[in-house]
Amino acid sequence: MRAIRVKTASADYPVIVGGNILAHFGYHLRKLNGKSKPRIYILTSPEIWSLWGRQLLESLPADQQPATLFLPPGEQYKRLTQLERLATELASAGADRSSLLIALGGGIIGDVGGFLAAIYMRGIDYIQIPTTLLAQVDSSVGGKTGVNLTSGKNLIGSFHHPRAVFADVDVLRTLPARELRAGLFESIKAGIIRDPRLFNFLERNRETILACDPTALKRVISASVQMKAEVVGIDERESGLRMILNYGHTIGHAIEAATGYKKLLHGEAIAWGMLTATHLSRTRGLLPEKDAARIEKIIHAYGPLPGFRARVPELIDAAGRDKKNKSGTRRFILASAIGSAVVVENVTDTEMISAIEYTLGLAAGARE
Amino acid sequence: MRAIRVKTASADYPVIVGGNILAHFGYHLRKLNGKSKPRIYILTSPEIWSLWGRQLLESLPADQQPATLFLPPGEQYKRLTQLERLATELASAGADRSSLLIALGGGIIGDVGGFLAAIYMRGIDYIQIPTTLLAQVDSSVGGKTGVNLTSGKNLIGSFHHPRAVFADVDVLRTLPARELRAGLFESIKAGIIRDPRLFNFLERNRETILACDPTALKRVISASVQMKAEVVGIDERESGLRMILNYGHTIGHAIEAATGYKKLLHGEAIAWGMLTATHLSRTRGLLPEKDAARIEKIIHAYGPLPGFRARVPELIDAAGRDKKNKSGTRRFILASAIGSAVVVENVTDTEMISAIEYTLGLAAGARE
Repeated sequence: MRAIRVKTASADYPVIVGGNILAHFGYHLRKLNGKSKPRIYILTSPEIWSLWGRQLLESLPADQQPATLFLPPGEQYKRLTQLERLATELASAGADRSSLLIALGGGIIGDVGGFLAAIYMRGIDYIQIPTTLLAQVDSSVGGKTGVNLTSGKNLIGSFHHPRAVFADVDVLRTLPARELRAGLFESIKAGIIRDPRLFNFLERNRETILACDPTALKRVISASVQMKAEVVGIDERESGLRMILNYGHTIGHAIEAATGYKKLLHGEAIAWGMLTATHLSRTRGLLPEKDAARIEKIIHAYGPLPGFRARVPELIDAAGRDKKNKSGTRRFILASAIGSAVVVENVTDTEMISAIEYTLGLAAGARE
Repeated sequence: MRAIRVKTASADYPVIVGGNILAHFGYHLRKLNGKSKPRIYILTSPEIWSLWGRQLLESLPADQQPATLFLPPGEQYKRLTQLERLATELASAGADRSSLLIALGGGIIGDVGGFLAAIYMRGIDYIQIPTTLLAQVDSSVGGKTGVNLTSGKNLIGSFHHPRAVFADVDVLRTLPARELRAGLFESIKAGIIRDPRLFNFLERNRETILACDPTALKRVISASVQMKAEVVGIDERESGLRMILNYGHTIGHAIEAATGYKKLLHGEAIAWGMLTATHLSRTRGLLPEKDAARIEKIIHAYGPLPGFRARVPELIDAAGRDKKNKSGTRRFILASAIGSAVVVENVTDTEMISAIEYTLGLAAGARE
């Protein structure tokens, strides 16, 4: 078991990475809370609860049994109407400012649970127990929470850090293989933008990792979280460095929007977006050919990436609505080496169009 | 013109109190923003906009004309559904992270506007231009923002401080007399809990103040804001001292709930709540009789308070759901002198019932 410390201007909390954590959750909670015994509320999905609920309940003492709130699976429930329903349920169940919310589930549960904790009575404590690899290596760490508008994803939200994150590799045993691979693209991103050793490890241990070997997974999760913790520690509010975490995300989000959030998993869309950003980085002579080739190779090796179809203008248009953009400037994250990313503001329309056309060509040839 | 500085752990901003501010708003904005020219969005009510919109627009340069968002008047619009609509309008109108929201209106506009700014793209800058006395002396300062649930008022929200607050006494000219008096009850509260000089001033200058004399009003507003700024500076998140700002509010909120938020203005309900808290403070021998009598006298002098009817159990019950309560403990703010308040946790049911019965007796005799 490893504890990685996330330390920012406004928060300081551990991300615990290990095996068999859920079964001993009561012990971890006691360690975290000391003598105080807050009322506990759990936000989860029916599916995750049927898999792991019993283990969690059994690990908690009789006088601290939680109330459970449910969010159905699917991006369409990541909305303010659900948040209002959940907050009303919290109020009816007697939650007060000293209560503790636990978000047990994938990225959507984490985002909605974190946001619910951020705005219920102007902020209560919460804990993340991410149950997908994607949530463990990425979304559960860093305090970004939120919901979607019809106008765009995560347009409503807060920065609200959890008290702790528990990433249990044993929970990943029940994760579909495709979701495991999709999550690994965020770890590949972590390697590209800041951790060449993690990149090497992912290159060399593909089979072990995809076979869900606990030791290999712990290594990958810890390194990914460590990278993110460092970046968020330096730039909590995404005014500078933190933007590099969005490598592949500008186009990735645009692809998700263009395909109606249905065809591709988030990680897969990000992988396509990383191919776009890598191509652009190489074409402008920023990224050495050798590095670009290694990045492309590893992304395909952790595939196959499902194909999709989209039109250049709709991707350009969706990318223009990216939250990173400020007063009309287009911001884009490029790679300059394996382990190094930069934020640029001078990507031209021609470069964008050419990189997107390259990606759409690949995507049209891939199996949908 | 006076600038009162609010300085907390997370924010540092001025509250400008003076006359003729709206007409020179463009100048104030330039002073605040320096060279940067953010896109401006104004949240207001149709009524306030028809009174003051033109003056505001004319004070802004041609290249910084704002887009306007409207919230209809009334507590029933202080809800997440309206927030979702407003956020969607911001997105359609191209608001990004560097945009500036201006909340021009009373307390509801301020609360909703502040919350909208808190959660749009995880937080954008905003400015408060409160147009009621209540909002000028109280709700616009301190960073509390939020909306209601059916389960209770302000159960959803954030702490999000404005970049600046502009309290223009000239705007109060169009305020109905009853609303002016209701706002003054928060200034009376400021005197009771922390500022005996303000209390004296309010006692001695009732006529001038109620006649809307600008000099007297500036004095009252500045002192009230100064008091709140000090308290919030010491305890931003209401973990201790800040709770004293809730003098009269526990029962006041319960009365509002029991009368369906219709019969009484917020300030009037708080005035009834202060009479309850004052009675309780005197009965347990904490507050000298002489001070209690002065408090009662000033509250009635700034009346008349409209009467209402309610039942003891429903007020007790509503007071039990107060956000200040923690893990089942009932918190209550009492006065120990004019200028001094304390937070206690040992108010008995008998004391509560007796103080509420006393208040209900007065309220039943008052004209509705």
